[in-house]
Amino acid sequence: MAVRISILYPNRAGARFDLRYYVETHMPRSIELLSAHPGFRNVSVERGVAGGEPGSQSAYVAICHYGFESVEDFIAAFMPHAAELQGDMRNYTDITPVIQFNEVLIAK
Amino acid sequence: MAVRISILYPNRAGARFDLRYYVETHMPRSIELLSAHPGFRNVSVERGVAGGEPGSQSAYVAICHYGFESVEDFIAAFMPHAAELQGDMRNYTDITPVIQFNEVLIAK
Repeated sequence: MAVRISILYPNRAGARFDLRYYVETHMPRSIELLSAHPGFRNVSVERGVAGGEPGSQSAYVAICHYGFESVEDFIAAFMPHAAELQGDMRNYTDITPVIQFNEVLIAK
Repeated sequence: MAVRISILYPNRAGARFDLRYYVETHMPRSIELLSAHPGFRNVSVERGVAGGEPGSQSAYVAICHYGFESVEDFIAAFMPHAAELQGDMRNYTDITPVIQFNEVLIAK
């Protein structure tokens, strides 16, 4: 089954998040490593700009979605680089991300 | 700028969420209406299967992402159908979703 792995960084008051480092350094390296696996399908890196209510802040400051053929493929792609990628997190944030595995039911 | 609108349904204990109605009735109707707008780019409907920690539940029971050319395009596509689509929510859930507008920074 096609899956997406979502990594969501909560928009916490006083938290540190270096969007430039995340977008220009961390995610390009992450994508370079993970997209080399044959189970890789796609990736999206996004910046939260607003919540659903007028004038509200977004719940998440940044979001990343990785599409893979299966959970097993993602694990196989990620684990050899877990130490490097998780170790790099302190270089752009002190936020603990919400991580979620999803089954893709509709994609158009 | 390309945007994604994320609608996330928190995985609340005791909450009601009829995944079948959501995937087979609500979202197909929503996609039929919104994809008719020229600013529509893509859509993904997903079911949360697990959290990042081994054995943990997903933070969200279901997630929908709409890709549009701009926030304005999404608003223009959605508003004429807001009453119908929001009114249909009670048919599948009592969860108030988290809604977030995102700017897409990397897409591959």
